[in-house]
Amino acid sequence: MELINALQWRYATKKMNGQQVPEDKVNTILEAARLAPTASGLQPFSVIVIKSQDTKQQILPIANNQSQIVDSSHLLVFAAWDNITEPRITESFSRTTSERNMPAGAMDEYKKRMINIFTNKTAEENFQYAARQSYIGLGMALTAAALEKVDSTPMEGFKAAELDELLGLREKGLRSVTLMALGYRDEKNDWLVNLKKVRQPKEHFVVELN
Amino acid sequence: MELINALQWRYATKKMNGQQVPEDKVNTILEAARLAPTASGLQPFSVIVIKSQDTKQQILPIANNQSQIVDSSHLLVFAAWDNITEPRITESFSRTTSERNMPAGAMDEYKKRMINIFTNKTAEENFQYAARQSYIGLGMALTAAALEKVDSTPMEGFKAAELDELLGLREKGLRSVTLMALGYRDEKNDWLVNLKKVRQPKEHFVVELN
Repeated sequence: MELINALQWRYATKKMNGQQVPEDKVNTILEAARLAPTASGLQPFSVIVIKSQDTKQQILPIANNQSQIVDSSHLLVFAAWDNITEPRITESFSRTTSERNMPAGAMDEYKKRMINIFTNKTAEENFQYAARQSYIGLGMALTAAALEKVDSTPMEGFKAAELDELLGLREKGLRSVTLMALGYRDEKNDWLVNLKKVRQPKEHFVVELN
Repeated sequence: MELINALQWRYATKKMNGQQVPEDKVNTILEAARLAPTASGLQPFSVIVIKSQDTKQQILPIANNQSQIVDSSHLLVFAAWDNITEPRITESFSRTTSERNMPAGAMDEYKKRMINIFTNKTAEENFQYAARQSYIGLGMALTAAALEKVDSTPMEGFKAAELDELLGLREKGLRSVTLMALGYRDEKNDWLVNLKKVRQPKEHFVVELN
C-alpha cells in the first residue's frame, strides 16, 4: 500500500517553497523515466533538467506565469523526438544488438519494418507518436517523485514553440511536450493542498467485461 | 531503491504461464491508474478488465496472436474517450465542486474555457489528446505491477477498430489505445527474460541545461 499512499499524498502542487531537492532523489526520478518501456524500445524522448534561476525566470512568461516554474528546485522538460528517422531507429537497434551481444544483423528484419512504418509518416505524425510515448515516462517519474516524498507538478500549459526556441531544442531534434516541476509544497500558500483529491469513482473508471 | 529495482526487474513479458494474479494486486494496479493525474483532471479514459478465456481467445487474432493475450491472468484495455464533449466536461467539474463542497458554479469560468477549447476541436483531435493522457495511467499501472511483482506486457500491436467492435467500446464512447497483460513470466519459454534491458545511456537521455 506504500505506492497507493504515495499516490494519494501527491497532488499537482500549486505553490512551492523554493527548497532544494537532493540530487539523489532527482536521479531516482530521472532513472524511473529512463527505465520506462516504450514501443519497440525506441525511447523517442529526452528529459531536460533546468536548475538555473535565470533560465526559469525566462521560462516563467512562456508558461503562463505559473509560480512553480521559479519556486521549483528542478524543472524537468519532457521533450519528444521531432521525427522518427532511419538514423534514430538504426541507432536504437544497434545499441540493442550490441548490448545483448547479438550478431549485428540479428534484428534487421524488425528494424526494416520499423523504418518502413515511420519513414512513411510525416514528421508531425511521428512527433505526436513520440510525445505519447513520453507520457509513460512522465507517469513513472511522477510515481517516483511521490515515493521519494518530493512534490511535483505536471504542466501542459505553456507555449511549446517558444520554449523550444529558448532552450534550443529543435537543434537537438526535440520538441517540448510537458513540464514537471520538482520541489516542496508551500502548505500555507497552496490553495489546492487541503482540497480533496477527486477522481472518477472506481466503478465508473474500471469496466469489468466478461 | 525499491522502485528502481522493481523497474529493473520488470520487462515486457513475452511468455506468461497462465497463473492467476490475486485480485488485491490487480486492484492496486487499477487504483494506480485511477489515481494518475491528467490535464484539468478530466481523466479521459477507462480501463477495461478482461478475465474470460473465451473473450481473450477472440482477442488473440486481433492482437497479432501474441500469446500473452491468452496466457495472461487479466487483460487490461486502456480505452480513451472517443471525444471530449460538453457533457463529459460538465460531469467532471460537477464531481469536483460537489466532492470539495464548493458552490456549484465555483469553477464555471474554468469549465467554460475547457468547453470552448475542446468543442472547437474535432473528435479525432480530442481522442488523440485523451489517448495521450491515458499513457500517464499506463505508466503508473506498469510501475504498480512491478512493485507488486506482477509481470506485465504493454502492447500496441493490435487492430484497435476490431477490438472496439468486439468489446462494444464505441457504444460506451471509448476507443482502445493499449493493452496491458497481467500475469507471471514463464521463464523457461520466454526468449526475452534473460536478455539485458537496454536503454539510452543516462548521459544521452538526460540533458542538463544551465
